[in-house]
Amino acid sequence: MRISFANDYSEGCLPEILENLSKTNLEQIGGYGLDSYSKSAIGKIEQLLGAEPNQVDIHFTVGGTQANLIVISHVLKPYSGVLSAPAGHIATHESAAIEATGHKVITLDADPYTGKLDALTLAAFLSEYWANPEPEHSPFPGMIYFSNATEYGTHYSAQEIRAIRDVADEYDMPIFMDGARLGTALVAEPEKLSFDQLIDLVDVFTIGGTKNGALSGEAIVFTNRKQNYADRFRWTLKQRGGMLAKGRLLGIQFDTLFTDNLYFRAAQHANQMADILRTGLKQRNVKFWTETKTNQLFILITPELKRLLLQDFIFLDWLIPSKQQLSELGLEKSDQNYHVVRLVTSWATQKEAIEQFLNRWDDFANL
Amino acid sequence: MRISFANDYSEGCLPEILENLSKTNLEQIGGYGLDSYSKSAIGKIEQLLGAEPNQVDIHFTVGGTQANLIVISHVLKPYSGVLSAPAGHIATHESAAIEATGHKVITLDADPYTGKLDALTLAAFLSEYWANPEPEHSPFPGMIYFSNATEYGTHYSAQEIRAIRDVADEYDMPIFMDGARLGTALVAEPEKLSFDQLIDLVDVFTIGGTKNGALSGEAIVFTNRKQNYADRFRWTLKQRGGMLAKGRLLGIQFDTLFTDNLYFRAAQHANQMADILRTGLKQRNVKFWTETKTNQLFILITPELKRLLLQDFIFLDWLIPSKQQLSELGLEKSDQNYHVVRLVTSWATQKEAIEQFLNRWDDFANL
Amino acid sequence: MRISFANDYSEGCLPEILENLSKTNLEQIGGYGLDSYSKSAIGKIEQLLGAEPNQVDIHFTVGGTQANLIVISHVLKPYSGVLSAPAGHIATHESAAIEATGHKVITLDADPYTGKLDALTLAAFLSEYWANPEPEHSPFPGMIYFSNATEYGTHYSAQEIRAIRDVADEYDMPIFMDGARLGTALVAEPEKLSFDQLIDLVDVFTIGGTKNGALSGEAIVFTNRKQNYADRFRWTLKQRGGMLAKGRLLGIQFDTLFTDNLYFRAAQHANQMADILRTGLKQRNVKFWTETKTNQLFILITPELKRLLLQDFIFLDWLIPSKQQLSELGLEKSDQNYHVVRLVTSWATQKEAIEQFLNRWDDFANL
Amino acid sequence: MRISFANDYSEGCLPEILENLSKTNLEQIGGYGLDSYSKSAIGKIEQLLGAEPNQVDIHFTVGGTQANLIVISHVLKPYSGVLSAPAGHIATHESAAIEATGHKVITLDADPYTGKLDALTLAAFLSEYWANPEPEHSPFPGMIYFSNATEYGTHYSAQEIRAIRDVADEYDMPIFMDGARLGTALVAEPEKLSFDQLIDLVDVFTIGGTKNGALSGEAIVFTNRKQNYADRFRWTLKQRGGMLAKGRLLGIQFDTLFTDNLYFRAAQHANQMADILRTGLKQRNVKFWTETKTNQLFILITPELKRLLLQDFIFLDWLIPSKQQLSELGLEKSDQNYHVVRLVTSWATQKEAIEQFLNRWDDFANL
Repeated sequence: MRISFANDYSEGCLPEILENLSKTNLEQIGGYGLDSYSKSAIGKIEQLLGAEPNQVDIHFTVGGTQANLIVISHVLKPYSGVLSAPAGHIATHESAAIEATGHKVITLDADPYTGKLDALTLAAFLSEYWANPEPEHSPFPGMIYFSNATEYGTHYSAQEIRAIRDVADEYDMPIFMDGARLGTALVAEPEKLSFDQLIDLVDVFTIGGTKNGALSGEAIVFTNRKQNYADRFRWTLKQRGGMLAKGRLLGIQFDTLFTDNLYFRAAQHANQMADILRTGLKQRNVKFWTETKTNQLFILITPELKRLLLQDFIFLDWLIPSKQQLSELGLEKSDQNYHVVRLVTSWATQKEAIEQFLNRWDDFANL
Repeated sequence: MRISFANDYSEGCLPEILENLSKTNLEQIGGYGLDSYSKSAIGKIEQLLGAEPNQVDIHFTVGGTQANLIVISHVLKPYSGVLSAPAGHIATHESAAIEATGHKVITLDADPYTGKLDALTLAAFLSEYWANPEPEHSPFPGMIYFSNATEYGTHYSAQEIRAIRDVADEYDMPIFMDGARLGTALVAEPEKLSFDQLIDLVDVFTIGGTKNGALSGEAIVFTNRKQNYADRFRWTLKQRGGMLAKGRLLGIQFDTLFTDNLYFRAAQHANQMADILRTGLKQRNVKFWTETKTNQLFILITPELKRLLLQDFIFLDWLIPSKQQLSELGLEKSDQNYHVVRLVTSWATQKEAIEQFLNRWDDFANL
Repeated sequence: MRISFANDYSEGCLPEILENLSKTNLEQIGGYGLDSYSKSAIGKIEQLLGAEPNQVDIHFTVGGTQANLIVISHVLKPYSGVLSAPAGHIATHESAAIEATGHKVITLDADPYTGKLDALTLAAFLSEYWANPEPEHSPFPGMIYFSNATEYGTHYSAQEIRAIRDVADEYDMPIFMDGARLGTALVAEPEKLSFDQLIDLVDVFTIGGTKNGALSGEAIVFTNRKQNYADRFRWTLKQRGGMLAKGRLLGIQFDTLFTDNLYFRAAQHANQMADILRTGLKQRNVKFWTETKTNQLFILITPELKRLLLQDFIFLDWLIPSKQQLSELGLEKSDQNYHVVRLVTSWATQKEAIEQFLNRWDDFANL
Repeated sequence: MRISFANDYSEGCLPEILENLSKTNLEQIGGYGLDSYSKSAIGKIEQLLGAEPNQVDIHFTVGGTQANLIVISHVLKPYSGVLSAPAGHIATHESAAIEATGHKVITLDADPYTGKLDALTLAAFLSEYWANPEPEHSPFPGMIYFSNATEYGTHYSAQEIRAIRDVADEYDMPIFMDGARLGTALVAEPEKLSFDQLIDLVDVFTIGGTKNGALSGEAIVFTNRKQNYADRFRWTLKQRGGMLAKGRLLGIQFDTLFTDNLYFRAAQHANQMADILRTGLKQRNVKFWTETKTNQLFILITPELKRLLLQDFIFLDWLIPSKQQLSELGLEKSDQNYHVVRLVTSWATQKEAIEQFLNRWDDFANL
């Protein structure tokens, strides 16, 4: 049985969740997310956000693609598109889910190593768009989307998000932060973004459960900073298939995750395991595609070593760098080929697994 | 704590499911429905259907509205609509989920008591549609939808479905049977439809988990009778948010449900409890909106008795009959008002709950 | 060559339009509806409406189905549907164009003879919808649609629209009046609705050109009564294919139609021709499906007489009345069959054509 | 009055069209594109294509964006996207019209000077896409789109299209050629693509009227090479608002355009005018962004000269080249700034206008 570093959703869930599902199993409770466990979970998230009563709106749905398409199609005007970095999950890994709701994902240039959306690029794009005397022929930029942590394992500082916020405010645009991996971003060192800051920085964000120890589930938080983007959200949630009859499945999970900081403790474990792996790889002079502080590592590896390690471990190919990229990464003089692969840790990763990985690395590297 | 007969999804899930989720929790397995548990579940369903290898295509998704909108939007041509009885779930209770994918639900007349689609009405509609020399101005009828069991607790015999099939074949149309409550329909007495007949009768159907003991989940079965409607279905499943990263959650549940006939035993229990309740009510001369054999009963009750019973039990208002309907139901001479309410039993209903309900009925009826 | 009473779009256009197209043909002018002729046309319509500068927003597009789908998809919230009478053009004759934009047409009961939406029915529907404690499971009623003149040739009085307006205001809903045949409705006797009243009564309406003497074209008027529903409308117009590169084609036509009251004079001619036809038919004791005052007449005719008249004239079958309907129309004792057919006059109808029709009627009726 | 080289739709239409509209104006004819003029036009196009009876399907609609969105949404499977060069009209200038129908425009790399889709790039993309063991997470490439002439005034040789066709056949994909400017491409020298070759090369294409002398209108030609992509097209045409009640407006125009080769003569005139302008500019050592043979010229011009010329002429900014691009264009040593502007000729351009332009150029260049 190979050990998997393929992703952060290979195991089931945090044991506390199964316990609470069992404990409450035969209670008769209401459906469609209006049950007491969902309400309790919402209360706990509100408290962590420091929200006033009725300030924010929180809903639960099952998966990440679902959350993204429901939020975006709910918030956007009918003629609008959403701005994203080219590596944005909605642009690449969701099989055109946003377009299927009638809206274009408009990609902006972004740093190919970090995959992060940049306030300057955003400002330049919007300035040029609105300088056009007849902009109505080009797709309307109606929302700003970014993932945090990103698809490249990087994360945003509060300052970086603030800069995006300022541009967004200038153009009166909502920001949607995809938090499928929010936990790992918030506990990443050096920590510069705290959970309660989100209430001022973005208009809507998700809190990913699936990739941080839940069986399934994403919380959707509308901060209602200025506009009530959450208005009638339950209609869209229902219409797009995102409302579970047994809403308890999500309510109990999030209630558990936000009890005793379980959500953040799970993410901290994932990051600590990543730290050990990162440190070990650095000691072995491995080059990183980009420096990350979260639970995803992207490393350059020779095809030979990759093949050998795949005998005992599972991890995913990411890309094959161009010559120019190799040069930018300081590998121009190498006569080796390199692939970029992704290694992911999670709430369930065991230290022993990492040690085994590094040991095998040494075995093969010394061949 | 009031006892609920409100629906069949008030409790968590069959204990076997929780057991299996726990047992497998820390296994590392692949995502997106390609795991071994999903495959095992598919194999068991295929076997029950008597399907040849690769004859049918089976997928899992989370909820009923989701399954309906994904299947319908996948199968329909872009310009097409779907025919349904007026009471069809997609026509009334899914917040225009089908229309949100760009397709009209075209309602046909149907018996208001049984809520069933009728082959003769269907044939008449299609004949008239295609007799029009320029039909392209009216919504295109591209698929036939019905629920089994229906929203009114009735179910279809094999003969009734065969008659619809014949019309469908004449016009080369696919049939989609919504099986959110398929279990209860298949085990209803007198049993005239067996599971393996579906492979010849419909083009695609769902096997509802949520309303028959699962935490969540519907199986989607493409029978591939004539056309490969399942082609590229995983793209639509992903695009519409129906593909779970932790596909194990669905795979393990359906693998459990189709082990040792658990799915059908759960449905039998629900129907047996309904039988007891039905018998008890009939002994008390209660009038039924329609005669059902499944786990949903629709009864006529005075507002006074309803109010009293709601002190101890939960059940839902269905409708207020018109005078003409009261007359058709044989209550024309009554000087009482009547409401129609729905009582639902499930895999989790206990006989004692029904006895309490009937006892309280007697208490109040004698007041 | 048979004479056609099939519809009001069988001829080309009012000769003044062709003249002006010719006169301006080689002028180089800007595209996409921003040209001077379009602006002039807008100014004339504004003046007739008594609108303040910048009070209303007016756009032009090519066809009626296009105008309907663009307006409705622009104004509706993503999760919303539009309320219509069952005979509403969007419900029946536009091949599910509204649904193709993701929105449901929700039909209300209406008088089957007049086809008119009724304020009381509307109020009852909305009251029941919002009395539901969990309405989010049913399609959201987000807009009120009616045609004026209707598909049955009837038209609304100012009072009737005011009553609908009051209900709409109670529920904060926009009203969209489909004016594909607005001209004929506004000049119908007894005249109770004037053009400038529309600014207070509806939120958006169309002024149909195609059925009143233009080659093609509908004006879309947003009245901006309360909310700026027109915001960013040019994006939707472009996106849905409704913006013509040579916007002059529409601008010149509407500029011509609103010069010297040509639009209303054309409609008056159509109605006068209808009056002559109606009077002639009444003298012959013909029964009408409903009493209309516009350019569409719906009459009951025996299949034999219909067949004979179709040798020399073109007109369309409308429906075959049921026995109950025949009884309601006072024809219960007849041993004749009857069909309902539609006769339409237009700006181009010649008095001689009507006389020929009535003469042939007499010829055949006396057989 | 400034003379416009802004585009090829600044004037009305070829005088033959107005003549025929006038001549037929009071004829009563059928609606919705089923009239005799539409049929005659279809017959003439079929003949030019050398098509067998019933081999191809031809429809007319009003505008280019409309034609594109209707064809693409009709042909694509629900989960599919369409491949395009980044400069493709559907990717940039149609306000996300394709996405509004639920489909993604997937852009491939392309030469930024010619804007042409390249068979090798296409093959590489598809090969990589289908090498992915789980491609269903990425947008499905379901169709190939290119414009001919392109948005950059370039055009495709038969050989280039054949190469794209071969890739398309390998992956069983339809090709849609956007012919908004087809006339100018087909008569461009050196002529390598003839009209009748299209029947073998693409699955569906448009014949643009608006930019080649019509008031409005595009013909849509399904070649039915292998699959009957045109099946039920009239439903989609109606549903998307593309079917005109007065279909005669389109039928008469295309019947006129395809009488006595008017369509190609109009395009030849446009190209001849462009040749004169091109030759004149070359004599003045003007640099071209790319070498075109059609009616669109893209030239590099200093901001000063541009400002002066705009006093007497209208033409559009296209882009501001980067330093690298200036270097690639051989202008690296210049200490001048350059803008790229577009000059367009048409069926209506007069030789005198070009002479005036070149004269003013000389006046200003000598300042």
